[in-house]
Amino acid sequence: METPDTPAETPAETTIAAKDWAAASADPQYRAAVVDLLGALAYGELAAFERLAEDAKLAPSLEDKAELAAMASAEFHHFEQLRARLSTIETDPTAAMEPFAAALDEFHRLTAPSDWLEGLVKAYVGDSIASDFYREVAARLDADTRELVLAVLDDTGHAGFAVEKVRSAIEADPRVGGRLALWARRLMGEALSQAQRVVADRDALSTMLVGGVADGFDLAEVGRMFTRITEAHTKRMAALGLAA
Amino acid sequence: METPDTPAETPAETTIAAKDWAAASADPQYRAAVVDLLGALAYGELAAFERLAEDAKLAPSLEDKAELAAMASAEFHHFEQLRARLSTIETDPTAAMEPFAAALDEFHRLTAPSDWLEGLVKAYVGDSIASDFYREVAARLDADTRELVLAVLDDTGHAGFAVEKVRSAIEADPRVGGRLALWARRLMGEALSQAQRVVADRDALSTMLVGGVADGFDLAEVGRMFTRITEAHTKRMAALGLAA
Repeated sequence: METPDTPAETPAETTIAAKDWAAASADPQYRAAVVDLLGALAYGELAAFERLAEDAKLAPSLEDKAELAAMASAEFHHFEQLRARLSTIETDPTAAMEPFAAALDEFHRLTAPSDWLEGLVKAYVGDSIASDFYREVAARLDADTRELVLAVLDDTGHAGFAVEKVRSAIEADPRVGGRLALWARRLMGEALSQAQRVVADRDALSTMLVGGVADGFDLAEVGRMFTRITEAHTKRMAALGLAA
Repeated sequence: METPDTPAETPAETTIAAKDWAAASADPQYRAAVVDLLGALAYGELAAFERLAEDAKLAPSLEDKAELAAMASAEFHHFEQLRARLSTIETDPTAAMEPFAAALDEFHRLTAPSDWLEGLVKAYVGDSIASDFYREVAARLDADTRELVLAVLDDTGHAGFAVEKVRSAIEADPRVGGRLALWARRLMGEALSQAQRVVADRDALSTMLVGGVADGFDLAEVGRMFTRITEAHTKRMAALGLAA
């Protein structure tokens, strides 16, 4: 795990991490960043619900369909938690989500799986990247927000069942591996491209994500965060039998 | 409520209703009927999950989308409870569901909403008919199965939000009422037509549903059950401002 969770080198984060929401949110820039973060996560979960439910139609069996439906339902419950939190901090959830709808919708539009295996790889990749991202960001949050983010994270990992299915499909027909490796690369490419778009649009969020406190943010650190997430993705794809 | 829940006139049901599953399931015909019932309900909930998630895409706002997604998620949890019960009574859930897949898939295929209001009416009608049916059947079940069916029933009614939305749409444009009334009639027609198909195919289930204990079932009583459900539907449609 390359996520920096030793706060010694990053005093600004330490300060935030030691505060609760009431104290931390006194800083309007921090508050705006958290509203953005919760809005982005909430819309992401709602969109994931929709796509997983859609992909469940591709399932070759009722058991498989139920597995994907279970993931979709779990994403919906994350959405509910995040939405409740937005209401608690007196923010309109819809207003908080809207700035992220276009990027997330576009990601899903460009990566609609054409068959069951592509759907499984997408569910697995999406779930894993979401976990990585939640972990990256948790260390930079106040205690109350961190608790919520970690609770939502703790409940992911439903995609584990995808790993076995994809592995056996590749064993049965190795050509499947080549096709799915290309697919996983495309998923990652589209995810990064939409993430860049969000980073460019949302200053407060981006500044917080990279640990910045000034009125700008360190583009090199954005790059390093994306690199860490990409590397973790590459390792997972290799473990799955796919060259990333 | 026209559901007969006074057991005095129906000694056969009283016998079953007073038993728990261990005692009641000693009768192989009763056991087969309950496996059919749970299988049909489980597949119905899974199919409802899929369709509601699909219809959520038609939502005009994020709040509306979230409402339909919440209903979908509730249906999925019903599915989970019913599937768990099938496993508990040592039945393969998939085998129990499969006989009902064709009728339910066909129903949904023939009644795919073409817009948000049709989706809302379908969610409301579907939820209500499911409740009516659960209530009809509960009185004929052993104590353990009845408890599950009532627990699942207790958690329905998420469709209430649909009523307000449909009412205001009709107020804003009365022509909408005519179109939706036709739509609701078509929904009911397709539901009955698929139900008839199931009744014709599944002897044990049908016999139990109509309170029969012999090797045949009372077709007139099947008709009366359908009539009761249709009448309740008509009243609901009138309350919604739709001529049924």
